[in-house]
Amino acid sequence: MFARTAALAAALFASGAVPAWADGLIDNVNGMTLDAKGKVVNFTGLVIDDDGKVKQLLERRDKRPEKLDYKLDGDGRTLIPGIIDAHGHVMGLGFSLLTLDLSATKSLEEALARIKAYADDNPSRPWIIGRGWNQEKWGLGRFPTAADLDAVVPDRPVWLERVDGHAGWANTAAMQAAGVKPDVKDPAGGRVERIGGKPAGVFVDAAEALVSKAVPPPRAVDRDAALIAAQDHLLALGITGIADMGTTIDDWQAYRRAGDEGRLRVRIMSYAAGIDAMVAIGGPRPTPWLYDDRLRLNGVKLYLDGALGSRGALLKADYADMPGQRGLAFVNDTQLLNMMSRAAMDDFQVAAHAIGDGANAQALSAIEELAKDYKGDRRWRIEHAQIIDPVDIPRFAKNGIIASMQPVHQISDRLMAEARLGPARLAGAYAWRTLSQAGVPLAFGSDTPVESPDPFAGLAAAITREGADGQPFGGWQPQERLGRVEAIDAFTRGAAYAGFAEDRFGTLMPGMRADFILLDIDPLLSTPGELRSAKVVETWVGGVRRYQQSEVR
Amino acid sequence: MFARTAALAAALFASGAVPAWADGLIDNVNGMTLDAKGKVVNFTGLVIDDDGKVKQLLERRDKRPEKLDYKLDGDGRTLIPGIIDAHGHVMGLGFSLLTLDLSATKSLEEALARIKAYADDNPSRPWIIGRGWNQEKWGLGRFPTAADLDAVVPDRPVWLERVDGHAGWANTAAMQAAGVKPDVKDPAGGRVERIGGKPAGVFVDAAEALVSKAVPPPRAVDRDAALIAAQDHLLALGITGIADMGTTIDDWQAYRRAGDEGRLRVRIMSYAAGIDAMVAIGGPRPTPWLYDDRLRLNGVKLYLDGALGSRGALLKADYADMPGQRGLAFVNDTQLLNMMSRAAMDDFQVAAHAIGDGANAQALSAIEELAKDYKGDRRWRIEHAQIIDPVDIPRFAKNGIIASMQPVHQISDRLMAEARLGPARLAGAYAWRTLSQAGVPLAFGSDTPVESPDPFAGLAAAITREGADGQPFGGWQPQERLGRVEAIDAFTRGAAYAGFAEDRFGTLMPGMRADFILLDIDPLLSTPGELRSAKVVETWVGGVRRYQQSEVR
Repeated sequence: MFARTAALAAALFASGAVPAWADGLIDNVNGMTLDAKGKVVNFTGLVIDDDGKVKQLLERRDKRPEKLDYKLDGDGRTLIPGIIDAHGHVMGLGFSLLTLDLSATKSLEEALARIKAYADDNPSRPWIIGRGWNQEKWGLGRFPTAADLDAVVPDRPVWLERVDGHAGWANTAAMQAAGVKPDVKDPAGGRVERIGGKPAGVFVDAAEALVSKAVPPPRAVDRDAALIAAQDHLLALGITGIADMGTTIDDWQAYRRAGDEGRLRVRIMSYAAGIDAMVAIGGPRPTPWLYDDRLRLNGVKLYLDGALGSRGALLKADYADMPGQRGLAFVNDTQLLNMMSRAAMDDFQVAAHAIGDGANAQALSAIEELAKDYKGDRRWRIEHAQIIDPVDIPRFAKNGIIASMQPVHQISDRLMAEARLGPARLAGAYAWRTLSQAGVPLAFGSDTPVESPDPFAGLAAAITREGADGQPFGGWQPQERLGRVEAIDAFTRGAAYAGFAEDRFGTLMPGMRADFILLDIDPLLSTPGELRSAKVVETWVGGVRRYQQSEVR
Repeated sequence: MFARTAALAAALFASGAVPAWADGLIDNVNGMTLDAKGKVVNFTGLVIDDDGKVKQLLERRDKRPEKLDYKLDGDGRTLIPGIIDAHGHVMGLGFSLLTLDLSATKSLEEALARIKAYADDNPSRPWIIGRGWNQEKWGLGRFPTAADLDAVVPDRPVWLERVDGHAGWANTAAMQAAGVKPDVKDPAGGRVERIGGKPAGVFVDAAEALVSKAVPPPRAVDRDAALIAAQDHLLALGITGIADMGTTIDDWQAYRRAGDEGRLRVRIMSYAAGIDAMVAIGGPRPTPWLYDDRLRLNGVKLYLDGALGSRGALLKADYADMPGQRGLAFVNDTQLLNMMSRAAMDDFQVAAHAIGDGANAQALSAIEELAKDYKGDRRWRIEHAQIIDPVDIPRFAKNGIIASMQPVHQISDRLMAEARLGPARLAGAYAWRTLSQAGVPLAFGSDTPVESPDPFAGLAAAITREGADGQPFGGWQPQERLGRVEAIDAFTRGAAYAGFAEDRFGTLMPGMRADFILLDIDPLLSTPGELRSAKVVETWVGGVRRYQQSEVR
């Protein structure tokens, strides 16, 4: 506020001697944004004010400002709004980036070398945690042992999950820290690998908990490091804002530390991990926008069902590949209404995870019930909305419900979805176009770290419904493909709208935060293959360059 | 930062047309502050810059600035720095102010009328909680009953503690909410008052828990209301800053909400309620100063012993009035060292509650041990430091330990202290002057709500060691009285120093936050009686008037 007034004062006395608060200009770009109504606006220059907001969009013939603090020649590159990921897990992404990943190792020796290097690189970490090993791929002919690990990390506990998550590999220090005794018994549903009758280091299935229960929760410094890693990763992919789906109070404190200390570079729209976290974080209402629109607790994330792969998604009829099974209802209708009204009464936004058509119907019914009492602009969100009974699609539009979907899930899931549902029940599966045409606001995201957060994979999926391998040719259920503008809209303006942020970011219209990316391709003209391999050249958030592609990439 | 630069820019172009960021002036005052070294500085005018900091102190002959945003004529009143309370409980004060207080009621009818009025005034409060009733004072000849309460509050649970805390009075709704059955048995150490064999409404001693266990914890809105009430109360008493001794994560979230929403008016130096709260609030280190120096997590509050009254204070020798009893050690030496080093390793400040001479010696030994490893400006604090073995006093000065003391405790405690310790062990009791002369930095506070936060009672106690009744004449252990300047120092500059805030507030030297009060007396000249009844006319925090005495008081 002061800064704007200062610029005004300076402008009043424009003179060479003034310490001026002038503007910045990004010029010579192939610029594209949507306006507040979703119409495409092109420009070749972007003027940024001293608050980091868009001041003016310039066309080629427009006169450029004379007094500038900085100017960047875009070399004719494409400039679009920064991507908003409408559904991700910021700390989950960060921790996954920091965890030792052994999935590429081809031998036990290579794995041990990587483990040792990682331990050496992280001297203050009390436990070395990793995942991804596979003794079959190593051609080892046996499970690895604690002794193997002790040779490279004798001093600290090491705990490494197998690639499938069905076994864990510990060193001696980890077994000691967990109190695993030499005569430990195999638990029901689990097996302790043994040498000479004593635990050898690998714990299978239910036996994993014998060690994993001792893994300490992340420390605050670990959380801070994860947040830095997540932000670096998102910015390099052109993501300037993200909805964090399931924020704990510890996550929130990490976000606030980053904000307080000037380390919050990505905009986070937070949805608390349940009602208790919502109250702990927000208290009696959503927080204000904090740190120049970089952080806000918008509401709460609630789970209605599980996932399709594990047949946890709640279906209206039996699973096609498992008769008698309809999935898991995480809450009954009364519980759901109670939780949702607890949120709505204090103006918290509700983001309801619903994957199966049963869960989607349950969410829709709950919203219809609550919408009678809780009026106004509520923006109820259904997260994933993967499998919808076509009769339920009109119910989305009726209460302005937002469908928060992840195009890449369609690519990953299609064969499984066909198996789980059978061909007759796919009409409302990943039904982007049908929902959009029914007037349902779409918000697109990635569900990172479940999928890669790369938005160009998401955009390519949205317009092709083909995998990176081009399969199935012409797209799976191609009638649900979106146009390019619609897809970009859902990843920018739509995702911002879903977080009550459409007057702050998501487009580049004057007055909005200057969050934008420079690309090596034009997403409106490039082939799907080019789109999938698009590189972000620069990422700017609030008029500050936060990522720049290095020359050597 | 921008604001200051803006003022500079404006100054460069000083002209009638400029929207100027000029200064404010508080003129015609009997101004007094200490300088950074504790020397008295007098002034008659105070210039405040647009950041709310002191720009200049003016003497009578100094020219006044011409361009001013605002000017206040102090009418010759005394102006001193805002009081800093070095030891209080902000939320505890707030909740005590919001709780229904029946201690002044003279009949059951009067009490019931107050209860009904309070319930009507607080329609959203799920339980009505109160205290202070005394059926003896009412001349009732019996305990009150649930039916008495039901007649005024039938719809919500009511739970009222007796004046001595040894009984609670419930209405029927409270008994139902707590699941008290008609045939409930008296617990060991407790008694359920009965009529016709059924619970009548009053629960004595251990039976209180039958109802009190159902009292819900405060909601976020209750916390916010308590914080508002606490701030109002502190500001009206001239307190502009306070060390909050035992901040929970819920307290902290309330402080942050207030800060985020511009409702934080008093500066809070926070000490977390134990190590877990410290980590939950601060994470890997103390927070930065937030909200223009209005909030910071400095460190952690740790308890070494109990209180003198309940013989929980840890003494080196037996209680004089209970041979064989030496009080309670809350932690052993190893636990204490572990907790203190856990804090110190991440640069959290340690504030150790120690009342008895045994606990003080334990704290001193722990600090001596830790000071070997944790160098630099640590400002170890001992809270209360009430009873100190004279041989231990030099140990305070050795490691720069701060004695954080509450002068009013000496007034309240003296007869009890004589009984508990006997005459021979009082040489190091409430030993303000001895500590000060030994080079120990003093920080004074109130321990509100245990005592009234009124700093003028504290100042009067510090310089007289007499009660409000003038007893004992000449003061208790009068050799420990302080001079007026020393007492004011400990309540301003010393309290700020104890919170690492001496370069931000606590004095009115140029560059410091303009936190000051206007008084109806001069604390350097008034009688102790006048000092005790001093009225704060105005309270300013950061150059903004936050309290003004109303004419009708």
